[in-house]
Amino acid sequence: MVENNYEELDSPSIFIGKQSDDMISLGSGQPDLPPPKEAFEGVSEDMLRKDLRYGLIQGEENLRKALAKKYNDAGVDDFVITNGASEALDLIFRALPSGKVLLTKPYYYSYPHILKHAGMTPVYTESVDGRIDINDFKSKVEANDIVAVLINSPSNPTGRVEDVDTLKEIEKITKENNIVLISDEVYKDLIYERENYELKGPHVVTINSFSKTYSLCGLRIGYLWSSDSILVKKCIDIKTHTSMNTSLIAQDMAISALNVPDGYAEIQRKIWKERRDYVYQRLINMKLDVWKPEGAFYVLPKIDNPKKFVWDMYTKHNVITYLGDWFGAPDRIRISYALNMDLLKVALDRIEEYLKE
Amino acid sequence: MVENNYEELDSPSIFIGKQSDDMISLGSGQPDLPPPKEAFEGVSEDMLRKDLRYGLIQGEENLRKALAKKYNDAGVDDFVITNGASEALDLIFRALPSGKVLLTKPYYYSYPHILKHAGMTPVYTESVDGRIDINDFKSKVEANDIVAVLINSPSNPTGRVEDVDTLKEIEKITKENNIVLISDEVYKDLIYERENYELKGPHVVTINSFSKTYSLCGLRIGYLWSSDSILVKKCIDIKTHTSMNTSLIAQDMAISALNVPDGYAEIQRKIWKERRDYVYQRLINMKLDVWKPEGAFYVLPKIDNPKKFVWDMYTKHNVITYLGDWFGAPDRIRISYALNMDLLKVALDRIEEYLKE
Repeated sequence: MVENNYEELDSPSIFIGKQSDDMISLGSGQPDLPPPKEAFEGVSEDMLRKDLRYGLIQGEENLRKALAKKYNDAGVDDFVITNGASEALDLIFRALPSGKVLLTKPYYYSYPHILKHAGMTPVYTESVDGRIDINDFKSKVEANDIVAVLINSPSNPTGRVEDVDTLKEIEKITKENNIVLISDEVYKDLIYERENYELKGPHVVTINSFSKTYSLCGLRIGYLWSSDSILVKKCIDIKTHTSMNTSLIAQDMAISALNVPDGYAEIQRKIWKERRDYVYQRLINMKLDVWKPEGAFYVLPKIDNPKKFVWDMYTKHNVITYLGDWFGAPDRIRISYALNMDLLKVALDRIEEYLKE
Repeated sequence: MVENNYEELDSPSIFIGKQSDDMISLGSGQPDLPPPKEAFEGVSEDMLRKDLRYGLIQGEENLRKALAKKYNDAGVDDFVITNGASEALDLIFRALPSGKVLLTKPYYYSYPHILKHAGMTPVYTESVDGRIDINDFKSKVEANDIVAVLINSPSNPTGRVEDVDTLKEIEKITKENNIVLISDEVYKDLIYERENYELKGPHVVTINSFSKTYSLCGLRIGYLWSSDSILVKKCIDIKTHTSMNTSLIAQDMAISALNVPDGYAEIQRKIWKERRDYVYQRLINMKLDVWKPEGAFYVLPKIDNPKKFVWDMYTKHNVITYLGDWFGAPDRIRISYALNMDLLKVALDRIEEYLKE
């Protein structure tokens, strides 16, 4: 690895398989917490020895039934079970007619790629303090021939949560402009401040997964929920040819995961909030310009020369951070605090020491 | 269901969830045989309680290592583990530049759909007696600006196996014309007549899955193999955004499945061959124009008025067959013989009786 060869910093994949024992990663977007033990109660060897013929492309009915109970006015047939939220997004954008899609900057790293691979063109609306600027949002919708908007609250990478009033306004603007509103809510159980607002209407597509809430990233179970039966059918039609049913074993485990007792998410949130408070205060103490995270487990501080920072922290100080540029925020870096407090302390000490130099 | 409403026969999905107890399906493309018991030896509850963080997008290294041993000159990094052969095909066509792809008629039902969703345009070469017509193949390649050809031997739906000479000629023609040769070999362990020929060259992409050989359709584990590292990287890049790693639990089960003893495939083939012989002879006795299957578990007889046949057999005689039209063979019907001999006998009796009328 060449000194100061920042050009290598083209994507998060540069960190794969290059981590030494002393390296602390503030990069990865996966919870460090184990899956809940209750999630495995339904799991047995018999489950694995089940009939493994093709399942329904839409997903197993018992899983869809369980999901329908978690939302208001949701029907069993409104859901498509997918290989994580990634495939849900891929399917939706392939199912919609080609055109422009409105994204908020900063955005989740994969969004522009997902759009590109589905033949869509991104149009960006800027945010204010890490949240959607509703005026800019509205003017971008009205000035462009937009097919869909994609929002993500809580946001990866800003950690910010949209106000309920903003969400209602977005629900209204998209409805009036006949635009599909796609809401990626994979962090919706990780809001520290308030409950999530459930967007309503046949123009709304809700995306979620079992990855973050239940620490089951590698299982790859996600879903989309829409009351637009024609759109749902289009997604199923595409999935019929591009991946068929989502793995039956993984769907069984997802059903098990739903057996966690009431209060599970609350206990998780307490852990995340403690980490959030700690990391935020440390960054404030370092005099960094930073938005206070309200959900998820990311914080996106402003940094002078972010490429040098990420490179130096990685190559000289054994801390992985992600470049804000990958998320449409070129003057910032992303820190994931999905680590225990001891590791967070060491990593933040290293950052503090580096910044002092 | 309306009498003679053939218009409903638009896709195989019309049969889903409408099957009575007495219905015998010669439709489905999945083995009726159970997965091999040896395949479950490595399976335990502990396996399910493993760390379920994100895995490598390319697939777990131990599975890729095991697969590399099954091919000549294959490297661990030549493989991408996918959600079945379907996703492998989807990835490859999305990774290639948009353009024309040569398909042989009759073709697997999903091929034109996979191409359409990946922005590709199919060009067709006609077959002779259910096998590739190498002269037409060559002239179609030379007359068109083709990006890739997709072959499938043994073939779904014809059950035919290409001669080794034909495969070598295709290998050569595609190489000379700088065309990617994609070989869907999901039935390669179900050849009754001879061994499979392993296509060679950096322009070859081999697709396979665990669905047919190990009766694990619902698990959704497939893969692509290519020695073109740039193409493999493109597939991984797309999968990073569209589905991420293939389910880790399913990959573990696939590794277990590879533990079957030598001779496993041979035992399976004997069962399939017995069924093939029986079904073929019965259809010959009915004076049907039929190509003798040499692999897979399909036969594609010519039928007068196939729509009426499929409709009547389904609505009046409780036998599901598939319309050849769905496979680019409008004057034929597809019969899958993935059923035990008793059921095959009853189903063929019903067909024979109907044809006598």
